[in-house]
Amino acid sequence: MNEFDLIARHFQRPTPQTLLGPGDDSALIEVAPGMELAVSSDMLVAGVHFLPDTEPRDLGWKTLAVNLSDLAAMGARARWALLALSLPVADEAWLAAFSAGFFSCAQQFQVDLAGGDMSRMTRGGALSLCATVIGEVPTGQALRRDGAQAGDDVWLSGYPGLAALGLKHLQGKTVLPDALCRLCVHRLQAPVPRLLLGQLLRPLAHAAIDVSDGLMADVAHIAKKSRLAARIFLHRLPRPPQGVERALALESLLSGGDDYELAFTAGAQQRPAIAQIAAQLDLPLWRIGQMKADATTPAVQLIDSEGKIVPWEKQGYDHFLALPSFS
Amino acid sequence: MNEFDLIARHFQRPTPQTLLGPGDDSALIEVAPGMELAVSSDMLVAGVHFLPDTEPRDLGWKTLAVNLSDLAAMGARARWALLALSLPVADEAWLAAFSAGFFSCAQQFQVDLAGGDMSRMTRGGALSLCATVIGEVPTGQALRRDGAQAGDDVWLSGYPGLAALGLKHLQGKTVLPDALCRLCVHRLQAPVPRLLLGQLLRPLAHAAIDVSDGLMADVAHIAKKSRLAARIFLHRLPRPPQGVERALALESLLSGGDDYELAFTAGAQQRPAIAQIAAQLDLPLWRIGQMKADATTPAVQLIDSEGKIVPWEKQGYDHFLALPSFS
Repeated sequence: MNEFDLIARHFQRPTPQTLLGPGDDSALIEVAPGMELAVSSDMLVAGVHFLPDTEPRDLGWKTLAVNLSDLAAMGARARWALLALSLPVADEAWLAAFSAGFFSCAQQFQVDLAGGDMSRMTRGGALSLCATVIGEVPTGQALRRDGAQAGDDVWLSGYPGLAALGLKHLQGKTVLPDALCRLCVHRLQAPVPRLLLGQLLRPLAHAAIDVSDGLMADVAHIAKKSRLAARIFLHRLPRPPQGVERALALESLLSGGDDYELAFTAGAQQRPAIAQIAAQLDLPLWRIGQMKADATTPAVQLIDSEGKIVPWEKQGYDHFLALPSFS
Repeated sequence: MNEFDLIARHFQRPTPQTLLGPGDDSALIEVAPGMELAVSSDMLVAGVHFLPDTEPRDLGWKTLAVNLSDLAAMGARARWALLALSLPVADEAWLAAFSAGFFSCAQQFQVDLAGGDMSRMTRGGALSLCATVIGEVPTGQALRRDGAQAGDDVWLSGYPGLAALGLKHLQGKTVLPDALCRLCVHRLQAPVPRLLLGQLLRPLAHAAIDVSDGLMADVAHIAKKSRLAARIFLHRLPRPPQGVERALALESLLSGGDDYELAFTAGAQQRPAIAQIAAQLDLPLWRIGQMKADATTPAVQLIDSEGKIVPWEKQGYDHFLALPSFS
């Protein structure tokens, strides 16, 4: 079986939202009136962005999920994806498992795999994956990083930090109780893009970002883009899970970037509406901080319950710096 | 300087066609009324799709150009690009040269680099590049592979095969005369996407493809998608350049895939209009074959001047098979 047949077998599925799907030079898509498009690409390389022995099914899910998370952070509805992959060996079992994971995510979030480049398979080199996602958002209503306002509450979804704990466990750097370990590894391998949350927040939030570089670093992105400063209140952060050393849990929460939760800001008058969304989605939404007008201070500061600044050096995940700990 | 600064320095340029450019979770773009979008992604990996010692400036050009070629083959106007790259070392000189080549191509074809993923730089692994391009085409007017009609002429632009000769020269597999060598290597390293040709062909051609897998293989794609057979006339192909062995030149023309010329089909009544486009663009357009209704024969056959079938085994570039010759 040549590569064209392999591609057709594993990557051509119905594309009901697409004018012309895989198999031509480009895919063709049509945008609904009154909508603009949110577009984003992410590349994942084996040994850098995921452990080389990651299950291909998990990897397929994650490749799409981390991209969809970018659309979630814009408040967009996901519609199409393109996938480019470079595979060291033409391993059909691997392709079958990878595509099963990818399409499992695509179906759950109603995304068409419209096209891409699956022909560039190779006999050498690292496994590289690149997904591009395209979503629709009503014109002018996207949640940007630069829209935060002084006085806004800073919010955070879910339980960030679990994925970073899962990674540390897989790397043999910490030992977690069994049940917690399974949860953390699952969060690492199968993150859930918060697409519905993003869409529900569109009329409420002023700014949003997905936490992929680490909470402190990502809230700093919002603050810098909005020319404000953010204060994160230590005592308002989600409690660390039981069975984990507190310092490790806090570091994972503040600088871990693999959970793909959303951080966002909104005016205080939106608190009841945001609480309602949390109940509707059965997803905790934590009010963890506040935006301040004083842009002369650091973009983000951690504050304890007495109002004192907690020294916090690590400003998130810088890929150049972080790699040595990953090998 | 951290990676965010490196990215800002080398990859943030004005994006006049883009609602929201690099620096947020997604880019935001707006589609003109009456237009649909053509979208395509291609991945390039060092040692597989390009020689590892390729000049970064050439590579920057080529990364965008090969993607734009897919839009050309749809008759689309190029508008936006996303770039994801994974770099083994954070080498600023390399980034500067690469981005110079990339933006040189972007400016020539009026494409905004709207976003992507340039933060995933790494200290290990192969250099991987993935570009996604987005173009506009009037609704329903894209040039697809499946639109060829029985009796259509088959056309080819430019001088395909030169890039494959250039590659063979760089690999030490052939020796070319100096001037020809420079031309061939230039074609390999800096292919020109035939965007204007594609747009001018929209009202004339029935089907189009860019020649990236090799002429015979790519014309076969049109034939199969259109449920027809194609006959390519040996004596109508562009003459091989002087100073090259004829068999080598022919093999490069028929199975070389790095020139990114267009192959297309059109009714015989369009010959004068197509000749006019060739003159307007100062680009040779060769009428090299014909589409036949008989889909029981092979999808593409090579025919000599006496009407006899010329045996032709190699059906183009299959990445799984072709790699060993590339290392």
